[in-house]
Amino acid sequence: MASGKTAAGDRPGNAARAGDGAGPGSPGNAGGPAAGGRTPAGGGTGGGSPFADDNETAGGALTGYLREQATAFLRGMSLRGESEYDADHLLRRSARRIAGVLHTYAPLTDPSWSEPLRAELGWLSATLGREPQYVERLTRLLEALRRLSLPAAPEPIRTEGPGGGANGAADTAAGGGPLALGAARAAALLERQLTLARTRAHSATLQAMGSSRFHGLADSIAVLASDVPLSAAGDEPAAAVLPPLAGQAYQRLSDAADALPLHRAANPYNAEAMRASLGAELTADLQDSPWQQVRILLRLSRYAAEVPGAGAPDDPRTAEASLLLQRHREAAESAAAVAAAARTPRIAPATAYALGVLHADQRHEVEAARFAFSRLWQWSATDPQAAQPPVATAAPPGARLPGAPGR
Amino acid sequence: MASGKTAAGDRPGNAARAGDGAGPGSPGNAGGPAAGGRTPAGGGTGGGSPFADDNETAGGALTGYLREQATAFLRGMSLRGESEYDADHLLRRSARRIAGVLHTYAPLTDPSWSEPLRAELGWLSATLGREPQYVERLTRLLEALRRLSLPAAPEPIRTEGPGGGANGAADTAAGGGPLALGAARAAALLERQLTLARTRAHSATLQAMGSSRFHGLADSIAVLASDVPLSAAGDEPAAAVLPPLAGQAYQRLSDAADALPLHRAANPYNAEAMRASLGAELTADLQDSPWQQVRILLRLSRYAAEVPGAGAPDDPRTAEASLLLQRHREAAESAAAVAAAARTPRIAPATAYALGVLHADQRHEVEAARFAFSRLWQWSATDPQAAQPPVATAAPPGARLPGAPGR
Repeated sequence: MASGKTAAGDRPGNAARAGDGAGPGSPGNAGGPAAGGRTPAGGGTGGGSPFADDNETAGGALTGYLREQATAFLRGMSLRGESEYDADHLLRRSARRIAGVLHTYAPLTDPSWSEPLRAELGWLSATLGREPQYVERLTRLLEALRRLSLPAAPEPIRTEGPGGGANGAADTAAGGGPLALGAARAAALLERQLTLARTRAHSATLQAMGSSRFHGLADSIAVLASDVPLSAAGDEPAAAVLPPLAGQAYQRLSDAADALPLHRAANPYNAEAMRASLGAELTADLQDSPWQQVRILLRLSRYAAEVPGAGAPDDPRTAEASLLLQRHREAAESAAAVAAAARTPRIAPATAYALGVLHADQRHEVEAARFAFSRLWQWSATDPQAAQPPVATAAPPGARLPGAPGR
Repeated sequence: MASGKTAAGDRPGNAARAGDGAGPGSPGNAGGPAAGGRTPAGGGTGGGSPFADDNETAGGALTGYLREQATAFLRGMSLRGESEYDADHLLRRSARRIAGVLHTYAPLTDPSWSEPLRAELGWLSATLGREPQYVERLTRLLEALRRLSLPAAPEPIRTEGPGGGANGAADTAAGGGPLALGAARAAALLERQLTLARTRAHSATLQAMGSSRFHGLADSIAVLASDVPLSAAGDEPAAAVLPPLAGQAYQRLSDAADALPLHRAANPYNAEAMRASLGAELTADLQDSPWQQVRILLRLSRYAAEVPGAGAPDDPRTAEASLLLQRHREAAESAAAVAAAARTPRIAPATAYALGVLHADQRHEVEAARFAFSRLWQWSATDPQAAQPPVATAAPPGARLPGAPGR
């Protein structure tokens, strides 16, 4: 618990509670999640070591993991004064993990306690997630418009994540080369609309953080740091209870992934993601939703594997797959935002034309993400335990989307 | 010469001349080209057998090939009454081959005769080529609009070549599903503009076919069927003269192809062809022209290989490569046509938006053609003599563009 104590050191109350509730499992898994908590930008692979001692109970292992995440959550609250971005990232990160693990290991906890908590955690991460999404979306779209207006040249590096910020991206786009008139107008329109949405999301976040609803949630997280209301199943040995539940989560994931049109998506330039471009919004949603569903199941399976003793080692390829499906989602939502902007009344035809090109470009990013995921997933299906980076080997380098590192 | 006589049977004068001028080579190569002449839609691989007897002169081999093409040309003229499409196809096909072979084997003929003839042949095939191009373009764009407006479903089969015709394509597009309003307007706009261009091209063709310029060209082709003004080099043995010249043509091709950004293009979703979409027209031309250049050199090399004794067997992969670069050109020119349509004054934003999506879609077809060509070319570079179909093996199935058969 050394790292855990350090992390929560500025909150003696919680540190004390954490100390009191230290279960047999905690020494084994102090490293992973607390370390993940200390590095908010550390990517999605943080989590406890998959190994736990044999005489640990399932409840002990779960409690240890939840305690680490709760500590990170409370630390995120204390961080908000310094950096809202890091704080919100940490809060979202731990909220998603707590909710996900409570879902996967539901039989181990008292549902009358865990289900309302999961709902509140879902509300919080959704609320906190909006502003970064708008920032990322604007960055991505301005970058794409810039790329679409540039003559052929070495590909510009994508601004990664919401770090770029709208103004930063706008400067890049402006400095990157002479935007065609329509593209410039389209950029201005998108910047206006997405900046407005971002501002609204920001005040919504501030409102949420000041709300009694949030304080109620924070209290139950603080309680979580001390003790978790376990069910009878919690007393059984971790090795007997956790692996089957984690296995079910992985099974739900792989069933949903295998139901995807992977074979078609693995053929480059299948133009499948473009089909809906001029159809109703609905068709695009219908086409994208199975992929979004897999993204969520993938996340649940990864979090489940982070619990020590879950048996499933945190597979680096699932992290890669998450990145790709994250990009799938960003591209799909960006394309939808462009389509919405194109419905703005009284825009110039040149602006609409540029938006049309941009929409198609983002739909092709969707297709590219599906391509990379399909190659990765079909590859890992054939050889699930191999260790080398999958995308780099399974798919041609070009399939590695800008920003998705070839890890 | 049996087939040759049959072909020119309805033009006794030429048949007689053809008979008089029968060189030593003609028995050896009567089959291929005449057969090619008899089947106008027989694809690009028609031509003399690559094998010629050893004691044949270079001039004899060239004369024999040119005679066959001239016979096909004159037959094309006589066909115009029955089917303008077949006739023009045959005329264009033989005109391109005569001009190309005169270019590659220029040292064998008197330049003061061959160069003006080549210029006239270029004029004719350019004139005859326009109408089918507009038909193909409209078919392609209406088909693409239809595909872009349909919900995800089995991919529609592309209408191949200019055979489809504008009205046919319009029916397909209308019947294929509910076009979004903007897409429907865009389709109507493109149909209006391209049908007008097609009509103009048609009357230009009729005018050309009735012009004294064409009759002058026809006369020199008729002369060509009897005797070719050869240079001194024409007396040397074919085996000593033709292979080096054919080799030079292939060398020019492979140098130009190797100068292409093949490695980048072989990575799917490199988004390179999209760069220019919103930039100036010029940037797209600059980006496409090296590929167009390779397309022309590829054609020259293929025609050169058709001359018996040229040594280079007519490689099926060059035919495949020609198909892909043909598709590259069609997609690039279609995208340009869409951009031009988008500059129509007073179009509705929804129309401009649909045109923007369509433009991007066609630029992605350009990228897909480059991808397939790169895979094919890099593959054939590693193993130029292997016989199995290249695209099917070298590139994933998806790389095989709709309409480009996996031969």
